[in-house]
Amino acid sequence: MTIATVGWIGAGVMGRPMAEHLLRAGFQVVLLERASSGVAALVESGAQTAPNARAVAERADVVFTMLPETDTVEHIVLGAYGVRAGLRPGTLFVDMSSIAPATSRRIARELAAGGVDAVDAPVSGGEQGAREATLSIMAGGTPAAFERAEPLLRCLGSLVVHVGEAGAGQVAKACNQIAVAITIEAAAEALALAEAAGVDAAKVRMALGGGLAASRVLERYGPRMIEGRYEPGARARLHLKDLAIATALASDAGVELPALRLMLQRFTELVERDGDLDHSALRTLIAPSASTRSTD
Amino acid sequence: MTIATVGWIGAGVMGRPMAEHLLRAGFQVVLLERASSGVAALVESGAQTAPNARAVAERADVVFTMLPETDTVEHIVLGAYGVRAGLRPGTLFVDMSSIAPATSRRIARELAAGGVDAVDAPVSGGEQGAREATLSIMAGGTPAAFERAEPLLRCLGSLVVHVGEAGAGQVAKACNQIAVAITIEAAAEALALAEAAGVDAAKVRMALGGGLAASRVLERYGPRMIEGRYEPGARARLHLKDLAIATALASDAGVELPALRLMLQRFTELVERDGDLDHSALRTLIAPSASTRSTD
Repeated sequence: MTIATVGWIGAGVMGRPMAEHLLRAGFQVVLLERASSGVAALVESGAQTAPNARAVAERADVVFTMLPETDTVEHIVLGAYGVRAGLRPGTLFVDMSSIAPATSRRIARELAAGGVDAVDAPVSGGEQGAREATLSIMAGGTPAAFERAEPLLRCLGSLVVHVGEAGAGQVAKACNQIAVAITIEAAAEALALAEAAGVDAAKVRMALGGGLAASRVLERYGPRMIEGRYEPGARARLHLKDLAIATALASDAGVELPALRLMLQRFTELVERDGDLDHSALRTLIAPSASTRSTD
Repeated sequence: MTIATVGWIGAGVMGRPMAEHLLRAGFQVVLLERASSGVAALVESGAQTAPNARAVAERADVVFTMLPETDTVEHIVLGAYGVRAGLRPGTLFVDMSSIAPATSRRIARELAAGGVDAVDAPVSGGEQGAREATLSIMAGGTPAAFERAEPLLRCLGSLVVHVGEAGAGQVAKACNQIAVAITIEAAAEALALAEAAGVDAAKVRMALGGGLAASRVLERYGPRMIEGRYEPGARARLHLKDLAIATALASDAGVELPALRLMLQRFTELVERDGDLDHSALRTLIAPSASTRSTD
């Protein structure tokens, strides 16, 4: 089946620029009708709307979702007026949200029963990656399903990896969020120690960037941490949600991950202060302790 | 003073190729006489030897040390037959070992009293960086001392950063070792979860490498972890030594660094098993827990 019309559900900070890329690539786009600036802007760019997810799906060859929570995706897809009710055999469903892998697998099974292929394709790269179509996309699904989704995914990202069967994209995303969280802590602790020891943190960052300590987090977030700029970006509370998914996944898979456990605590603490800060604000949890500074 | 003759103390895995670069750059090199393969190879390449550190210093315009432990550096420099006893006013001392910053500051003060400039210039990049002269070098010392050392340091590394006053190079190295240790744990936990969840870890590594989770550790050590190759490389017990220095420094500076604390525990556990493994063997501490794997 040739894909001419794309249903798109989720026109937020990420979804809106992503849907724009598909419009620009020449696809018809049908959105869920909503009083939101994202939907309004996309309609301005030529998108149409439909009153519920089923109606979006009825008019589309493929439906994409880009939503913040596992429960929302489940409801939008499997609910009475959901995507499943509107898709015909031979169509395709692609979920780019970050949700629990078990839910992605369940959705894939339920859609397969109706002759619909499903791909879970969560992303890394944030708002900037969405705007610039430079996302990293981690996809799970059958080879046939992935092959159908791939050309559309390539409109949205610069790296598209078919990781494995249904749910494997979500597993990769959980792994990604573990690595990002712990690497933020690595940069935060290194720069905090430099400052506490009275050494120029910007120079330490420069020195670390040339060696084995180099990371994209240190490169991108080091300056934020040094200057104390924590406007989002990627909100701490969304990262906490992803770490909760990762923790449940690790528990189901029977692995003990001590730094993940620590990061779940740290992010919980940060979100209790202000969940709308950028996740690099982990740095703010590190403060000089009560002990007096020694001067040797 | 023009530098023609370099005293070099420490001809191990790192020191030997570094001294070779200085020989190749046209400097005379005087080594501490030792029955070691490193010294023998350097003598073969044209280096001379002297019977103790003082005698090395007496014949040199600058003395370099590249040694494994704080105490050894202190003894070699400040001991009765040490470097300090042999250096004349106007000469230079460069310590490229990774040691406690307080000791570097003390050595700088004691040498300054004798009219000798001192630079602490620890490195990141390991054996490969030493062989290829692509080390990252983090230097501490007065601007004048750094300026004199810089041309020689540029023979050894591809990035040379003057971080600050005496000891600042060692502080930067401590920050580096914190960041590297925590980033190794980040890669290890992400890849361990992928494997435990039954997903191809090599594909997860590829997907993570394109986004915010990207790090030099994931790029270089990811394959080792996936294939279970842990020959050194950078030995776990030396990294543990550096984390002990970093922990003492954080305590003196009055900062609580929870992931550093965790990594000190993890490295202690790894070294109890086998301290001669590469530090990427942190991955081996993550094993499936006793709980049974669920299959949703």
